[in-house]
Amino acid sequence: MTNCVLCNEDLKPEEGHLVWCGDDCRIILVNDADLPGFCRVIWNAHVGEMTDLNHGEREHLMSLVFAVEEAVRQVMRPDKVNIAALGNMVPHIHWHIIPRYKNDAFYPGSAWSTKTQETPAPILASRVQQAGELSAAIREAVSRLN
Amino acid sequence: MTNCVLCNEDLKPEEGHLVWCGDDCRIILVNDADLPGFCRVIWNAHVGEMTDLNHGEREHLMSLVFAVEEAVRQVMRPDKVNIAALGNMVPHIHWHIIPRYKNDAFYPGSAWSTKTQETPAPILASRVQQAGELSAAIREAVSRLN
Repeated sequence: MTNCVLCNEDLKPEEGHLVWCGDDCRIILVNDADLPGFCRVIWNAHVGEMTDLNHGEREHLMSLVFAVEEAVRQVMRPDKVNIAALGNMVPHIHWHIIPRYKNDAFYPGSAWSTKTQETPAPILASRVQQAGELSAAIREAVSRLN
Repeated sequence: MTNCVLCNEDLKPEEGHLVWCGDDCRIILVNDADLPGFCRVIWNAHVGEMTDLNHGEREHLMSLVFAVEEAVRQVMRPDKVNIAALGNMVPHIHWHIIPRYKNDAFYPGSAWSTKTQETPAPILASRVQQAGELSAAIREAVSRLN
């Protein structure tokens, strides 16, 4: 689709970076100032809903989502992981995997809810540092799938 | 867990109703005034994260989530389906499956975002009526899994 931002993704370093890319999916580490460790698993082709994929494709995509969740838990040690495929604005399948903490900016709401608080700066800085280890952990978790 | 609302779910008719219950999971049709057709797939046991489940359990749960998505698309004909497992407030695995429309209360935001508009009352009423067919469609979609 010529007007889809995920079909024509031109990821700038300040927005995030590509961690892994396969034939069907890619994994992005998102640079979110409030939510370090925010990851995205994107289906490469322009497909709108999970049930537009066949069963094997759904399983493959979800195995990547859960590999990312494993890496996120291991590296970021969050209080909770949030997983979501919304796509109201970009109807091209992409999963958000978000480490959540009781002192993060949106807790206990969703990452799309109103901000509830500011994470203390030193804690946020240490999470940004932790997130630096995520790419390697994700690649390792994905390599264990095969 | 004695203090978990999903371990001790006492679903009142005004909150929703049980559509299907298996050994591991149950499916609820949620009574959400703004989002008719909102469904929930809940893991029966108190488990916090998807990666706390083994691979077979994850596949089973996701196959139910996608069966619900199929039924929701067929019956509700939404513009988009949203799927999410958050659990910040109730850390017991449950998936939200939500039919979304360009004129729904939160569009294009998430169902947890700030309200953006009111759906015209006759449209909302017709969606409530459509949602009345969802239970049967979900049970049929689940029965096709085996």
